[in-house]
Amino acid sequence: MAHLLSASCPLAVSLTSSSKNSVKPFGLNQTFFNPQPLSNHPSLKALHFQEKKPKRRRRSCVFLATATSQQAPPETSTNNNTSPSKPKRVMVIGGDGYCGWATALHLSKKNYQVAVVDNLVRRLFDHQLGLESLTPIASIHDRISRWKALTGKTIELYVGDICDFEFLADSFNSFEPDSVVHFGEQRSAPYSMIDRSRAVFTQHNNVIGTLNVLFAIKEFREECHLVKLGTMGEYGTPNIDIEEGYITITHNGRTDTLPYPKQASSFYHLSKGVVYGVKTDETEMHEELRNRLDYDAVFGTALNRFCVQAAVGHPLTVYGKGGQTRGYLDIRDTVQCVELAIANPAKAGEFRVFNQFTEQFSVNELASLVTKAGLKLGLDVTKMTVPNPRVEAEEHYYNAKHTKLMELGLEPHYLSESLLDSLLNFAVQFKDRVDKKQIMPSVSWKKIGVKTKSMNP
Amino acid sequence: MAHLLSASCPLAVSLTSSSKNSVKPFGLNQTFFNPQPLSNHPSLKALHFQEKKPKRRRRSCVFLATATSQQAPPETSTNNNTSPSKPKRVMVIGGDGYCGWATALHLSKKNYQVAVVDNLVRRLFDHQLGLESLTPIASIHDRISRWKALTGKTIELYVGDICDFEFLADSFNSFEPDSVVHFGEQRSAPYSMIDRSRAVFTQHNNVIGTLNVLFAIKEFREECHLVKLGTMGEYGTPNIDIEEGYITITHNGRTDTLPYPKQASSFYHLSKGVVYGVKTDETEMHEELRNRLDYDAVFGTALNRFCVQAAVGHPLTVYGKGGQTRGYLDIRDTVQCVELAIANPAKAGEFRVFNQFTEQFSVNELASLVTKAGLKLGLDVTKMTVPNPRVEAEEHYYNAKHTKLMELGLEPHYLSESLLDSLLNFAVQFKDRVDKKQIMPSVSWKKIGVKTKSMNP
Repeated sequence: MAHLLSASCPLAVSLTSSSKNSVKPFGLNQTFFNPQPLSNHPSLKALHFQEKKPKRRRRSCVFLATATSQQAPPETSTNNNTSPSKPKRVMVIGGDGYCGWATALHLSKKNYQVAVVDNLVRRLFDHQLGLESLTPIASIHDRISRWKALTGKTIELYVGDICDFEFLADSFNSFEPDSVVHFGEQRSAPYSMIDRSRAVFTQHNNVIGTLNVLFAIKEFREECHLVKLGTMGEYGTPNIDIEEGYITITHNGRTDTLPYPKQASSFYHLSKGVVYGVKTDETEMHEELRNRLDYDAVFGTALNRFCVQAAVGHPLTVYGKGGQTRGYLDIRDTVQCVELAIANPAKAGEFRVFNQFTEQFSVNELASLVTKAGLKLGLDVTKMTVPNPRVEAEEHYYNAKHTKLMELGLEPHYLSESLLDSLLNFAVQFKDRVDKKQIMPSVSWKKIGVKTKSMNP
Repeated sequence: MAHLLSASCPLAVSLTSSSKNSVKPFGLNQTFFNPQPLSNHPSLKALHFQEKKPKRRRRSCVFLATATSQQAPPETSTNNNTSPSKPKRVMVIGGDGYCGWATALHLSKKNYQVAVVDNLVRRLFDHQLGLESLTPIASIHDRISRWKALTGKTIELYVGDICDFEFLADSFNSFEPDSVVHFGEQRSAPYSMIDRSRAVFTQHNNVIGTLNVLFAIKEFREECHLVKLGTMGEYGTPNIDIEEGYITITHNGRTDTLPYPKQASSFYHLSKGVVYGVKTDETEMHEELRNRLDYDAVFGTALNRFCVQAAVGHPLTVYGKGGQTRGYLDIRDTVQCVELAIANPAKAGEFRVFNQFTEQFSVNELASLVTKAGLKLGLDVTKMTVPNPRVEAEEHYYNAKHTKLMELGLEPHYLSESLLDSLLNFAVQFKDRVDKKQIMPSVSWKKIGVKTKSMNP
């Protein structure tokens, strides 16, 4: 479960007139891409891949019918020259990742003009930690080419690090986004707890990256709407209801509405649970569009991990007492939520917070659901208790509000038997790819230290 | 006003046995110190200055009488070989700064064994922004030498950046602190709002620096007590009372005690006001021990600025309506508060938050007090309204609690006529050093951008 922040720039500043694009566009078939996403070599910093440079001045050839709809913008015709509208241009930062890729495809399908900005460092983490997605995933280049071949739609690709402001500024000035969806944060709590250097990386990447995005919007695209994925993990497990962003407090006879109090418990305070599932309408269109599915103990989310464990006959790994309750949502709802936020942007100066989940489950409840669904498919599902590697309450009150996205029109995909069947069958399909060594938790909140952790298998 | 965080490491981890000191001690009279505090050249990173390397194994030659005192540890005799105690070793990070230097001297006077860790970047800021302390201040080397000559007491000096973990680790392993006082944050809200690079510097320096301190404590000095200066600015100006760190909330019939909600309003959310005054018993001993006094619009705090303005006949610069109310404390109480926290450390695993101030004033109230005191000294004091460069409420409720340090034994120096007289006379003494161009606000919260700000006078 995540929370979703949505803001438009509140400050009146003049836009700079110098939007000269210093990013060099390269054809996708050219081969001089150097696969070192963190390199600081200037010539590698700002690679910009796209199949065909769009002609930005011919905006009238594509239209967006109306911005007054509370729902997604209607399907558009790319050949309609009569409309004065233009498609909204959405930059998806972290668009090669689990939520980002599904979102980029979904928005492209809905006729938004989409650019993916990503340093591909998530793929590097897999190499470094010896992990691999359950699903084989195509390169971002092949993914985008396949999408173009299937749909005729172009997704622009900017490869670089948003902590490098020169790269980010060039990407902004080249793509000129109307909305930015920011998935480009290191989002694994266990990753942030491996060692000091990864804790520092997480803070640096997430704090400085987001600062840079805010500055780029203010400087180059003042009216741009920012949709940022945060984490409800920062709220911890308070004994009172979790509101959406703000809470009205009466104290000593006075009242104010203040930001909801935060209680982080890891260096990336993400309470896992979060998003589950793997398929969306778009990723299903071709195997090269397939999304990643992490089942390992560092990046895998709870329900996804349980389904893969069930598929390979590994006992479901319940951490501690299993009473840890969080909000969950289907990845099809993730992409829907982001689109709803984009289609219904915050007013100028407004900052909105949505608690982005549809249902609450405890770990034990998830294990029971997976067990039941697995047995129906003939799988022998057991569960085991694993000493909790985290520092967290294992039995607690949890009641988080989540009405604001419903009010925007979210139609939830609740966790159903058919979804569990589908996810289990998907896991069974790829079960030969499972590395069982990655299943048990390897990162302990209490053992984090300054020594670089050995990555020996 | 600041808040003061105090914590001891809650996690049981084994200390590393390798505390080999790779920091090379240099004599103060040697001349190969390179004055580039931010250099990344390895040979410049970890300069360690001290007059005489203390013999760490001869601890019994110095004693600390008892740790049960609620007050400061009693004066000790450095020649008493009969005591089994040893002085507490306190590392003051940022010990060359306004609060840090006064604290380092105060603790050394009280027979703590003190080390100053500082990259001296605050002095670099003065060069870069064209600012200068009202008071001429000696180099940190001369300050420490003078202190030794006057008192016989050694303050060790480690020059380097705590964001460089190798330097910090070496400093920890060399000095072996029992307590760390962390003043090493960029603490000016206007500085953080100058431009993107300084906003990023502020976040990087403050977040990564503090992370590194936490990791160093956990890895090398697990029982070390951390006293960190934060900011009450992060609480903003809520319409309800500000508690110390935590607030008990009853919501929808349930109750929990949660961290106090935060509402930052600058990239370093420090509400100026904060500490005032310049003299402490120790800094008064010699002109080379004199503390800095910032009167400029970037680093100067409200009351100090007003006194300097009064001294040079500049109207007092009230930002906006002047109803901005904050907590204030005398620098003599700053050093007292830090010492009280060190002398009464948090229990293992405990995290304490103290709201560190003694009185609340609005800007208008401060202006009136300075006007009245100035007239008594024959100064012609006027005030002027300046368009507020900040984004902040100019009329608001403000009531922050501050009982916990009183309970530890703080004996406040309340703002008095005699203090104002003293501060005004001090400002008059140095009025020829005032650069009037630095008085008016130069940094606007709304105009921050990515372009490096021109520093032309």
